[in-house]
Amino acid sequence: MSALAFNNPRVQELRRLLGRRSSRHGDGRFVVEGPVLVAEAVGAGWVVEAQFVPMGSDAVIDGAGEVFELADGVLERVGSTEAPQPPIAIVKMRDELGDLLSTASFVVVLDGVTDPGNLGTILRSAETAGADAVVLTPGSVDPYNPKVVRSSAGALFHVAVVTAAIDDVAAAGIELFGTTSHDFPGRTVVPYTHADLRGRIGIVMGNEAAGLPDEWNDTAGPIRQWVTIPHRGRSESLNVAMATTVLVFEVARQRSRQWSPSTSNDAG
Amino acid sequence: MSALAFNNPRVQELRRLLGRRSSRHGDGRFVVEGPVLVAEAVGAGWVVEAQFVPMGSDAVIDGAGEVFELADGVLERVGSTEAPQPPIAIVKMRDELGDLLSTASFVVVLDGVTDPGNLGTILRSAETAGADAVVLTPGSVDPYNPKVVRSSAGALFHVAVVTAAIDDVAAAGIELFGTTSHDFPGRTVVPYTHADLRGRIGIVMGNEAAGLPDEWNDTAGPIRQWVTIPHRGRSESLNVAMATTVLVFEVARQRSRQWSPSTSNDAG
Repeated sequence: MSALAFNNPRVQELRRLLGRRSSRHGDGRFVVEGPVLVAEAVGAGWVVEAQFVPMGSDAVIDGAGEVFELADGVLERVGSTEAPQPPIAIVKMRDELGDLLSTASFVVVLDGVTDPGNLGTILRSAETAGADAVVLTPGSVDPYNPKVVRSSAGALFHVAVVTAAIDDVAAAGIELFGTTSHDFPGRTVVPYTHADLRGRIGIVMGNEAAGLPDEWNDTAGPIRQWVTIPHRGRSESLNVAMATTVLVFEVARQRSRQWSPSTSNDAG
Repeated sequence: MSALAFNNPRVQELRRLLGRRSSRHGDGRFVVEGPVLVAEAVGAGWVVEAQFVPMGSDAVIDGAGEVFELADGVLERVGSTEAPQPPIAIVKMRDELGDLLSTASFVVVLDGVTDPGNLGTILRSAETAGADAVVLTPGSVDPYNPKVVRSSAGALFHVAVVTAAIDDVAAAGIELFGTTSHDFPGRTVVPYTHADLRGRIGIVMGNEAAGLPDEWNDTAGPIRQWVTIPHRGRSESLNVAMATTVLVFEVARQRSRQWSPSTSNDAG
């Protein structure tokens, strides 16, 4: 088979899958770029349908599906980065989630987080801290966005990502901890280290600019307890990805068999 | 005074200060870009010597030094971002540090961290968690690099940054905690939450790829205790900025009057 030109339908399909959320989800497929990430997807058991490499390239990854060769310069025009590394692969989305929420014990809920880099970082933290899933509410960034795939450094292939309404998370019996700044009217707030995070819990993070909906407070909305990260100096110094990292590792600390929440020994 | 053309010496000086570490440090001056960061520098008491705005712009910041107008298109050619926002300002480096190390109680030591975005994030975490200083060893990224200035989101103006050899930090009586992966030969490693971080301490982070020098172990080098961040799933999921964020907030947790290190109640 000859190398594919830029206007080849398979190449145009790659472009659509990289560029359009609707194409990805209509198809149930997305694009993974570069040898490290493609190998990570294969290693984690994701179905890789096809991989595209420049003509004559030895960048083919074992197990990463049918190999297509690209004509000169096509990789550079298609890839989502400035200097694309082969292969570029088409990967099937998983529908493994079933009733994950009914059994999950520790989830991170992102309510309207929109920055791909933030989601990528949060996926890394969630994986490392042992979260069962990251839940995205409708309106959040697409986890299959190529920038998320890249910035997750492979964590996307290792932590379950669920799209669900927050009320469905609460209905699954998960106790939701909302993050907020200190002085929000109607919200009783405790330092995050003083919350007992050892049950079936969800850490809920809001939109980068707006936070969680103003109308959610102690009496309205799905949040059971409000927490904040105490800070020296200016507020607003941590972005949502950094704040999530701090919180999920406090969850891990408390849930370790050797760890107890600090609330149990505050009297000392 | 007429608007400055691209080849004006003042404009060329801006370019040098943005582009060259040696120019910045030879001069003791660096460049801050955009209204939010310039206002932050002024608010934090840094000396802003000059600000540059497009001809007729109302983007001038009060207290940000002498105002120079730039001819059409010059801002776009000079600024370090794709869409520069005025003003661009020249700020004097501070030499406020004196014997800071001899009195500091909590520092973050970066030994060869080279990525500007990582340093920016670490400055944000260090500020929020209440570190007295971030210490950079020779060979680390320049904190006045425009990408660091930008990614620190103003934290650079609020947390002291010191360049020093790590032996000088140890000589100042600061107990150094080195971060490492689990199974490094010659290093006895405990989970970070099991270390007592309430004294005069420094958290030491290594280069993005190489970590801390291989020859530092239990018996050689400046590290007094080795710690690691326990993880589920793959190792290497956290980058150095995320790992530092986790560690500095554990330091803050332990040092809060209401917090005790988990080691004190592990028996429970």
